[in-house]
Amino acid sequence: MYYFKEGLINIIEPDQPDPAAAKVLQEALGGQFGEMRTMMQYFFQSSNFRGKERQYRDLLKGVFLEEIAHVELVQTTINQLLNGAGVSTPGNAGADGAPLDEAVKHANPHHFIVGAQSSLPVDAGGNPWNGSWVYNHGNLIADMLNNVVLESTGVLQKTRIYEMSSNKTLRETLGFLIVRDNAHQNAFAKALETLGVDWAKLFPVPNYDLNKYPECRKFVDMGYHNAQFNFRLDPTRIGEIFQGESPSRNKGELRVIDPPAGFPAPEFPEMPNEHSPGLTDMGR
Amino acid sequence: MYYFKEGLINIIEPDQPDPAAAKVLQEALGGQFGEMRTMMQYFFQSSNFRGKERQYRDLLKGVFLEEIAHVELVQTTINQLLNGAGVSTPGNAGADGAPLDEAVKHANPHHFIVGAQSSLPVDAGGNPWNGSWVYNHGNLIADMLNNVVLESTGVLQKTRIYEMSSNKTLRETLGFLIVRDNAHQNAFAKALETLGVDWAKLFPVPNYDLNKYPECRKFVDMGYHNAQFNFRLDPTRIGEIFQGESPSRNKGELRVIDPPAGFPAPEFPEMPNEHSPGLTDMGR
Amino acid sequence: MYYFKEGLINIIEPDQPDPAAAKVLQEALGGQFGEMRTMMQYFFQSSNFRGKERQYRDLLKGVFLEEIAHVELVQTTINQLLNGAGVSTPGNAGADGAPLDEAVKHANPHHFIVGAQSSLPVDAGGNPWNGSWVYNHGNLIADMLNNVVLESTGVLQKTRIYEMSSNKTLRETLGFLIVRDNAHQNAFAKALETLGVDWAKLFPVPNYDLNKYPECRKFVDMGYHNAQFNFRLDPTRIGEIFQGESPSRNKGELRVIDPPAGFPAPEFPEMPNEHSPGLTDMGR
Amino acid sequence: MYYFKEGLINIIEPDQPDPAAAKVLQEALGGQFGEMRTMMQYFFQSSNFRGKERQYRDLLKGVFLEEIAHVELVQTTINQLLNGAGVSTPGNAGADGAPLDEAVKHANPHHFIVGAQSSLPVDAGGNPWNGSWVYNHGNLIADMLNNVVLESTGVLQKTRIYEMSSNKTLRETLGFLIVRDNAHQNAFAKALETLGVDWAKLFPVPNYDLNKYPECRKFVDMGYHNAQFNFRLDPTRIGEIFQGESPSRNKGELRVIDPPAGFPAPEFPEMPNEHSPGLTDMGR
Amino acid sequence: MYYFKEGLINIIEPDQPDPAAAKVLQEALGGQFGEMRTMMQYFFQSSNFRGKERQYRDLLKGVFLEEIAHVELVQTTINQLLNGAGVSTPGNAGADGAPLDEAVKHANPHHFIVGAQSSLPVDAGGNPWNGSWVYNHGNLIADMLNNVVLESTGVLQKTRIYEMSSNKTLRETLGFLIVRDNAHQNAFAKALETLGVDWAKLFPVPNYDLNKYPECRKFVDMGYHNAQFNFRLDPTRIGEIFQGESPSRNKGELRVIDPPAGFPAPEFPEMPNEHSPGLTDMGR
Amino acid sequence: MYYFKEGLINIIEPDQPDPAAAKVLQEALGGQFGEMRTMMQYFFQSSNFRGKERQYRDLLKGVFLEEIAHVELVQTTINQLLNGAGVSTPGNAGADGAPLDEAVKHANPHHFIVGAQSSLPVDAGGNPWNGSWVYNHGNLIADMLNNVVLESTGVLQKTRIYEMSSNKTLRETLGFLIVRDNAHQNAFAKALETLGVDWAKLFPVPNYDLNKYPECRKFVDMGYHNAQFNFRLDPTRIGEIFQGESPSRNKGELRVIDPPAGFPAPEFPEMPNEHSPGLTDMGR
Repeated sequence: MYYFKEGLINIIEPDQPDPAAAKVLQEALGGQFGEMRTMMQYFFQSSNFRGKERQYRDLLKGVFLEEIAHVELVQTTINQLLNGAGVSTPGNAGADGAPLDEAVKHANPHHFIVGAQSSLPVDAGGNPWNGSWVYNHGNLIADMLNNVVLESTGVLQKTRIYEMSSNKTLRETLGFLIVRDNAHQNAFAKALETLGVDWAKLFPVPNYDLNKYPECRKFVDMGYHNAQFNFRLDPTRIGEIFQGESPSRNKGELRVIDPPAGFPAPEFPEMPNEHSPGLTDMGR
Repeated sequence: MYYFKEGLINIIEPDQPDPAAAKVLQEALGGQFGEMRTMMQYFFQSSNFRGKERQYRDLLKGVFLEEIAHVELVQTTINQLLNGAGVSTPGNAGADGAPLDEAVKHANPHHFIVGAQSSLPVDAGGNPWNGSWVYNHGNLIADMLNNVVLESTGVLQKTRIYEMSSNKTLRETLGFLIVRDNAHQNAFAKALETLGVDWAKLFPVPNYDLNKYPECRKFVDMGYHNAQFNFRLDPTRIGEIFQGESPSRNKGELRVIDPPAGFPAPEFPEMPNEHSPGLTDMGR
Repeated sequence: MYYFKEGLINIIEPDQPDPAAAKVLQEALGGQFGEMRTMMQYFFQSSNFRGKERQYRDLLKGVFLEEIAHVELVQTTINQLLNGAGVSTPGNAGADGAPLDEAVKHANPHHFIVGAQSSLPVDAGGNPWNGSWVYNHGNLIADMLNNVVLESTGVLQKTRIYEMSSNKTLRETLGFLIVRDNAHQNAFAKALETLGVDWAKLFPVPNYDLNKYPECRKFVDMGYHNAQFNFRLDPTRIGEIFQGESPSRNKGELRVIDPPAGFPAPEFPEMPNEHSPGLTDMGR
Repeated sequence: MYYFKEGLINIIEPDQPDPAAAKVLQEALGGQFGEMRTMMQYFFQSSNFRGKERQYRDLLKGVFLEEIAHVELVQTTINQLLNGAGVSTPGNAGADGAPLDEAVKHANPHHFIVGAQSSLPVDAGGNPWNGSWVYNHGNLIADMLNNVVLESTGVLQKTRIYEMSSNKTLRETLGFLIVRDNAHQNAFAKALETLGVDWAKLFPVPNYDLNKYPECRKFVDMGYHNAQFNFRLDPTRIGEIFQGESPSRNKGELRVIDPPAGFPAPEFPEMPNEHSPGLTDMGR
Repeated sequence: MYYFKEGLINIIEPDQPDPAAAKVLQEALGGQFGEMRTMMQYFFQSSNFRGKERQYRDLLKGVFLEEIAHVELVQTTINQLLNGAGVSTPGNAGADGAPLDEAVKHANPHHFIVGAQSSLPVDAGGNPWNGSWVYNHGNLIADMLNNVVLESTGVLQKTRIYEMSSNKTLRETLGFLIVRDNAHQNAFAKALETLGVDWAKLFPVPNYDLNKYPECRKFVDMGYHNAQFNFRLDPTRIGEIFQGESPSRNKGELRVIDPPAGFPAPEFPEMPNEHSPGLTDMGR
Repeated sequence: MYYFKEGLINIIEPDQPDPAAAKVLQEALGGQFGEMRTMMQYFFQSSNFRGKERQYRDLLKGVFLEEIAHVELVQTTINQLLNGAGVSTPGNAGADGAPLDEAVKHANPHHFIVGAQSSLPVDAGGNPWNGSWVYNHGNLIADMLNNVVLESTGVLQKTRIYEMSSNKTLRETLGFLIVRDNAHQNAFAKALETLGVDWAKLFPVPNYDLNKYPECRKFVDMGYHNAQFNFRLDPTRIGEIFQGESPSRNKGELRVIDPPAGFPAPEFPEMPNEHSPGLTDMGR
């Protein structure tokens, strides 16, 4: 069963509201290679696991647990980017047109229509998340190879989204996730090493120098690219796989460590003029 | 952040393999009103919460946590129903035709093609789960009303699926979930009571006598229809709402209690002939 | 604006409950070439019409109005086929297994899970109706040509579905719709004749002899294959197009006539044991 | 069966062409909570109705009839917003680039590619309308509760879209629909009152003051928020439910009244240069 | 079986990078009436062909072969439009914001996130290509009529996209495809003429003067609007249909001719900073 | 450009009509890991290729060409399985019910409704093929790794489908494709070897003994598991990669060879009673 303690897995770096950044960041949440997919893929792979070599199942379960926190982190980051992006007074159009007119020009319009300026289970193009994206082939090698591809593509896409906006809120979250995807790439690549593969200098994919991303550097210094957080309240065999030398050409020692202490989630105010969503808006 | 301890939230009752039962039970997992939807809906609603009345957010978060365990329970139930449903020897067709021929006649064929006879993120018709099904209107009343509908529909569909198979594995899991959906219906109906609504004798929907379902009765005796499990490792304000008399016409006292101790998940064997998925099947 | 008077456009012929027939008949309701598509396609084409030659718009509007009645006819036919297909007593599995077990073997499972054994906006494979199927090219020739294809394919599919079941409820409804699709094929083919096309002996598509379908013959005798019902409460120019010799090689005179007097819709009983949907089931 | 008389249910207020407004207004037509969904949802709920308490069926049928006119109103409004948005001369790019270049910058590109600058069955993000959005649970309470949510969300989204543009064409149509959704919210809330629910001051959702929207005020003065139009040509029992005091905290008397007299639909000119769609463009 | 020789079917005309043009041109690749649909539709129609009149099958096969080359041409054109649209240095935001910020403002964001600034199997709105768009009715008349509609709509949409951008890269490719779609419209219209239809002056649809498009004129001079390329390495009966006077009111003689000699495809450079996709980026 | 010569890439082994086999075999055609996906994935990857190391592009192009022939092979196999599955006489129901009643019991109903008992672009569950399944990450390593997963999953699924039917028509085609997917797995694994990876004994995935499948053995004897067919009419650099020792633990020498001579496609008869699709059915 699943337990919870308040605290985001990384800090929300404040910056200006930025609906255009929120729009593209949706890819990291509800995109085909976003956090919802990794979360659900490892959930199904671990629940559907067969056989006695349960160290692989514990690896899948362990990464799944972190992905739930990743989903929450990206949801909150998008909320931060949207918060304050438009404040309206019902029924009044100013001299400059409608209150939200400018705010939504490069936005996903659903961010302003469907919810109260908050995250959605969709990608950067507005397509809803789809269950057919979850791969669980039921063959350990095929699943592990696919997970390596998934984490590699995750980094690849996040580095590209990073270049699409200089907003610090977006970049801090992506910087953290890039390093963590790197760690998970190492996790699944290492699992395949236990089956005999020698990756030579293939990883990390893409061939990026983490130190060029200022937001990544601090996490590299903390060793987060070679660490796996342990969210288990009971014993786990994850360390049978996630140990020893990293399969990355950047080397280092793989270690299972405690998760971060937790960062406070910003508290977003009610938006009574948007009819959303708190008690001020209610019939009492 | 999210933590885990082994143990299913209810027992897996053994019975015969039953691919036809597995097919229809998928509705309770990946259907429009299944556990994946409730899980993701409350996840988005709690992460996107605005305002200071955070007892409502804690209610959403609390139910979300249980839904993760529900997803795992239905995944495992489907796996149990599929396990042993067909054993094949590659390349050999017996006198009676192909080994899996009979097994798949009333099955979802993807249960035998896509994975190793295991659960999928799809509904009873084989349609993949879709992000557009998640409702987060960003208005607390609209969201709470919708959650009442969602839990009512959840019970409604589960009682109908219950009638479609006498397989005990399917019925035990549905019996547990029917009672729990009842409790969550109470939770959101109660939240609306705090805003002034008097439901009279409207609930539960549907108007069913839980005692007619033998699998439900034991949970009613344990008070599970009026209880909310607490999966928080830190304080929660859920009890500010989930307390006092039940909004159901069956009455009773709402109580926040500890979760079940946890039931062991069955360990499913490797299926080397299906190339799935353990080490036996690997290149060493 | 749109007005309504009780009365189905054709009779519901009683026969045995037949979930397998209901499943395939869904194609004629929510399939890519079913009545929902024709209804919405002509709705969009008529609302989006440009230019002064409004006799073509009146033709589109006129067929649209009839298609609403067709949707209602197929919905009701499916309901008739499902009604009584399974009667269950909650929680009780008899010696022969679950009450609905046999009923749903060749059924669309959603007919028994999602609603109260009633019609759905899906096709014979269970795929939901999709807005991308509506063609409105915004060019009158392209739209009229497409409408000819749509009505031809409508007949083609309905004659094939007819062969898939001998259930009289299904066949009577299909027989009526085959003749009406024939009339609408004539309508759009005639519209293209006004622009100069000579169809020679191309139509009807498919090249079927209506008299081989006993359910069609009575409607042919009534001239329904060359008639267009007029559902307008105000003047219409539809007769400027739908007149003169039929473009079909079966010839005959095209005529705009009054709609049928209306047939009573069967009243389906409540299903309290299925929790559906009437007051018996309610909290009072 | 369904009858028609020319005349829109509200006036089309002229203003500048505005493809960006047309894009977001699509949500009110083909969005998950738009008029196509309400239309089809009540169509299925009324056709699939079971039991003898047909006053509820007549309520569903009555609202369904109005929704057809709403779909037509939004289609026409979008057409008005797109009309004149770009006039091109085939093959000639002026000094300022392509004729439609500027027009489509913030547009849904399909408005200019798929049809002749006219409405589409899609939402504000361009996603096609989907049949899985129609809820018909087959349990009267669940359906009525869901309809309350649907109408509440309809208002909520329309007030948000209203803030996204100051175009008068868009705002007049939304103002009318906001008041009508309010009336339909009252209709379904009242239906639940007949089953014993006391809503206290919960409605309307959202908690908006209609008088702040200038476009709404005139309709409130006419009592449209507490009225249901009667589009039946034969007797109806809708008045058994839609009567007495409004469930809204704004009070008032619910009344069934005659529909508006009907407003002329604008006649949009042919666009021969866009090859759309009238006879000028044809081969004669 | 299928063979290949390097060489595009038309030239790639160089012009400025233009992500907005690339976005709308996707409709001609992955849209409902784009080249992927024509390619797959004729592939299925020719593989599923029944009966001995195989000249119609050879016509379908012949057009299918050209459509593969069309897909490649549009893919390459989109790549040319995206190439150089944004050059970034990982991790460095200049004074003017993120490197790709400006580039993606009116772009399909997936062009910059999913691949290395290259074509995708999606339409202008970002919706993925869908198999349900392929029509193969299994009745020769219905299929041929539908193919006429498909090619007519193809021209219609391409002329509209042409107006949306003055970029020469986009216009050259569209100019070529407009003329070729015209030829294929003639092909299927002629096939229906062999069955007796007289089209009078209906075609081409739309009623456009090709000479107004400078990019089309040169191909008309070469007779490409009345020619069908022969990509068969063995005998074909296509000439039994594609011969004699064109069904277009522009007349001319239909001829089966050799394909163009082939134009060199531009070689796009690696984008190491985008981690894409060549060896520079690799671990060696 | 693309050229064609009649001849299937493998023989169609005759056996009984078998709609149930046709239904599951659709997965190998229009499924997420079927031949349409491999065909389109390599098409996009080769057209979108960047950089000068074009031996990798030639590898992608080479496999793409073969996949077109694979699609044709599966289409034809499904047609063979459906041919003769039901013969009907319009309008006549015999003593045993409708002519197609029995035929469609375990069939995909669309095989009998949409076309003339022929293949469709859908999977075994009837879901249409979707463009979002095509992966083209724009990073050579990520793409090659993904292609290895794709081909491995292809084999995995085909061996499972093989077990679901003993029909020889189905098994012969699957046997051929299993061996060819094995070769393509080798191709992409070898491409990664050129970048330094040592796969040890990981491949083939799954860990199957080809000799246990009688239909595979003859192709192994012919060396097809280590061969790549060359469909180029001009020079190709594919041999720079596809050479030397196989990356499979079964070893052997990789060789580029000529394609098979070609097998005749069965000619399916017209089905005039199904109105499909030849001239017999036409209006002359």
